[in-house]
Amino acid sequence: MSVTDELLANAERYAATFDKGGLPLPPAKQVAILACMDARLNVYGLLGLQEGDAHVIRNAGGVVTADERRSLAISQRLLGTREIILIHHTGCGMLTFSDDAFKESIRAEAGIKPDWSAEAFSDLDEDVRQSAARIRADPFIPHTDAMRGFVYEVETGRLREVKI
Amino acid sequence: MSVTDELLANAERYAATFDKGGLPLPPAKQVAILACMDARLNVYGLLGLQEGDAHVIRNAGGVVTADERRSLAISQRLLGTREIILIHHTGCGMLTFSDDAFKESIRAEAGIKPDWSAEAFSDLDEDVRQSAARIRADPFIPHTDAMRGFVYEVETGRLREVKI
Repeated sequence: MSVTDELLANAERYAATFDKGGLPLPPAKQVAILACMDARLNVYGLLGLQEGDAHVIRNAGGVVTADERRSLAISQRLLGTREIILIHHTGCGMLTFSDDAFKESIRAEAGIKPDWSAEAFSDLDEDVRQSAARIRADPFIPHTDAMRGFVYEVETGRLREVKI
Repeated sequence: MSVTDELLANAERYAATFDKGGLPLPPAKQVAILACMDARLNVYGLLGLQEGDAHVIRNAGGVVTADERRSLAISQRLLGTREIILIHHTGCGMLTFSDDAFKESIRAEAGIKPDWSAEAFSDLDEDVRQSAARIRADPFIPHTDAMRGFVYEVETGRLREVKI
């Protein structure tokens, strides 16, 4: 049995007691969360989110590239969100390598060097500020006044706010 | 009190009973999930994920652009994941507009037309297959044999598999 099969069995149990069939499309709490994909960061559990509450956008690092700017523009312009929460975290994989070395290792194996930036970083707080700055600089995301940034501590389960 | 303040109060409660401080960086179940950001799709609840289990990548639509290919390359090459689960869902906002109209509405308001594709789609199952095809065509994501695709039904809480 694959891991996917195991998770599908969990999904059948979820559906068996499901009672949230009538929720509207726009997030009830009008908030979008942008966080790292890290397995230890349980965004729903941490923030006490319920089905229907918030958009959750995640990627390697919780960084801001064109695709996160696309998702935030859709979230705010079409689906009414007004606040943004940025979450990076301690022990992030993005702190463990450099773009140059990672891309060279891919070139050595695949014969092609990626045309994307890996978005590795060396300073957590600075990268939270970098994400905020990229969002503020984007001409297509209208609501950035209520944006706040945090570092989640995987060791303690705590959120620490970063001045952005 | 802002919504963010309310969620921060939840985060303090999460930290108060936190007992998962020693989890390793690589996901225990060696799986990456790529899903839509939709508020009604609770990936942790649906799949029964625990802290440390899986990478979770999310964006508007659950589509595959350069940034999802970056995240999956990092997930597999640096952090050991081997399976991929794609999740789109019924009632998706991406079914409700066209790229052309959305981008024209932004141009009319902001004076600049986005240089990204909004990635709107009109056929759910076909877009799950499109995501899978983009991942298979990527030269930097090594493990695609164990990839499976699904549509989550927001009305019933069920996952329906799509042949990819």
